Amino acid sequence: MDEINFAVLGTGGIGRRALDYSTQKDHLTPVAACDRHGVAVDHDGLDVDELLAATEGNIANDGGTQTVKQSGSMKGVAASAQADPTETPIDDIIDVSDAIDAVLIALPNLEHDFVPNVGERFAEAGYEGVLVDVLKRSRVIDILDAREETYEDSGITFVCGAGATPGFLTGAAALAAQSFVEIEEVEIWWGVGLKSGYEDNRGTVREDIAHLDGYDIETARNLTDEEIEEIVEEHDGRIEFNDMEHADDVLLERAGICDAEDVTVGGILDVRSDEKPTTTTVSVTGRTFDGERGTNTFQLDDVTSMEANVNGPALGYMKAGVRRNRAGEYGVFGPADLMPGF
Amino acid sequence: MDEINFAVLGTGGIGRRALDYSTQKDHLTPVAACDRHGVAVDHDGLDVDELLAATEGNIANDGGTQTVKQSGSMKGVAASAQADPTETPIDDIIDVSDAIDAVLIALPNLEHDFVPNVGERFAEAGYEGVLVDVLKRSRVIDILDAREETYEDSGITFVCGAGATPGFLTGAAALAAQSFVEIEEVEIWWGVGLKSGYEDNRGTVREDIAHLDGYDIETARNLTDEEIEEIVEEHDGRIEFNDMEHADDVLLERAGICDAEDVTVGGILDVRSDEKPTTTTVSVTGRTFDGERGTNTFQLDDVTSMEANVNGPALGYMKAGVRRNRAGEYGVFGPADLMPGF
Repeated sequence: MDEINFAVLGTGGIGRRALDYSTQKDHLTPVAACDRHGVAVDHDGLDVDELLAATEGNIANDGGTQTVKQSGSMKGVAASAQADPTETPIDDIIDVSDAIDAVLIALPNLEHDFVPNVGERFAEAGYEGVLVDVLKRSRVIDILDAREETYEDSGITFVCGAGATPGFLTGAAALAAQSFVEIEEVEIWWGVGLKSGYEDNRGTVREDIAHLDGYDIETARNLTDEEIEEIVEEHDGRIEFNDMEHADDVLLERAGICDAEDVTVGGILDVRSDEKPTTTTVSVTGRTFDGERGTNTFQLDDVTSMEANVNGPALGYMKAGVRRNRAGEYGVFGPADLMPGF
Repeated sequence: MDEINFAVLGTGGIGRRALDYSTQKDHLTPVAACDRHGVAVDHDGLDVDELLAATEGNIANDGGTQTVKQSGSMKGVAASAQADPTETPIDDIIDVSDAIDAVLIALPNLEHDFVPNVGERFAEAGYEGVLVDVLKRSRVIDILDAREETYEDSGITFVCGAGATPGFLTGAAALAAQSFVEIEEVEIWWGVGLKSGYEDNRGTVREDIAHLDGYDIETARNLTDEEIEEIVEEHDGRIEFNDMEHADDVLLERAGICDAEDVTVGGILDVRSDEKPTTTTVSVTGRTFDGERGTNTFQLDDVTSMEANVNGPALGYMKAGVRRNRAGEYGVFGPADLMPGF
């Protein structure tokens, strides 16, 4: 595997963990990162420790004090010695994208076309490389697919839905399907214990709440932090989700594995414990060529955190995407189309 | 996925099941098959039912009579109305290989360099396409790697070790590794119940016996059928294997996932029951980026047969190989380098 220089758009929980995680992986060099107010670029490799220390949400973590979320023009990335304040962080990254092999888009996607639009801005600038997102909603994949030609013309390999679910577990379902000639059902069931990671992952919790009965993406976006706390309180910190709109369904359908309607996604989020409330399991039920009906399963150890299971696959799929891109394969790829590199 | 015309070299258990299996998969058309004495080619697609009925080992199965293994110039493939007798079956396939996208090499590999040599013959003829094998031994991968340039120069994408183990379970291990930044141990443990499939899979049983203490590939090859029966009898039909030389180890190492020595393969073969004597399980133990140590697992339902778990992945990896080949990626690929298509 050749060396990969990558950028991270967004330094919330996922973006920061991706930077951190990459320091423990071979062949990956983070060369750029931005948030709303700042951009840091170093083609020899960012000093991740310094950047993370300067990034919002990562301060005042000692002594058990609750993390303080900061904002403003000199907070977040801009507070790093490696960074400059900016009003146009994404354009600044696009300006140097000739030297960037892959970009992890770790921005909240509260508008359905936000991530596709970011991709389009890279395409308009003639970017030739990999874009990776960890988005969750099925309908975003449709938007990406509708714009596939734009990415192809530019030379972009867009790897979508490459986090834990969809992503890791979609890939597992695609693999588990190999025993069968016809898939009847794919059940994805996740458990997340998010006590110590709660502050870092408020965006994810907000997105999850949009899946609850009575909420949608619009109403969830408009909730105040206090209202979110109330919802969490009502559930005693432990919220169960059923029939979520997670893109595993369309990603498995576009790979020809099963119909989207045969895929169900659900899980339990516990924000008051770091123990997982339930074991993350993928169950794939199908018919074998010789007429048996069976269920293959893939289980993650309860000790593996959400952060490990989002960021490992995101970077693994990024490596796989770079390989496709270097072979001249452009367009939109789901996890089921790619074996993650390690 | 574009259409794929493929050939099968060898019509023992794996070759015949691959032909059968392919009739239940989309986008796959078997256009050629051969055994020692015969070759059948039809670029519009073979009549698989007719060919299988004519192939040795597939006769006299009614009424509980033991299958009679036939041989001679008009037996096996040559007995098919679609086939011709030949002394040079592989050369005959090579002669028409311009119209063949992929070749499944389902020949017994009792000489370590036999499959690599078959690949070399295709390369010498300038074949541009995919070769897939389901070989098991670690050292064969080294031979393939040593000759990678030959395959690359020809335009061959050689997907090796693409059966159940290595193959399916290697891919599962590569995927399960994504939670971790460092892999401590990969344990592959298989169960096979082979009562009704025993006659069709004598070659596989013979190869397995070579893994037992006191035997090697040389001595196993020279065993008579009666001597094999005696060994089976000594174990009451249920043979346990430990520390097998299965190429999962080198295939995971070459994909950068772990050291070969951290991979162990074992299992139980029961030739007197179709029930699996133990559940096939892949366990991957590693360290997460945030310092936890855990084990992810992948389990196959006991009802899925060895045939389903060899041939599904072999054809899935074939599809993935064709995709790589059409993108101009040549050389030697292991399962961990490829996500199987479905």
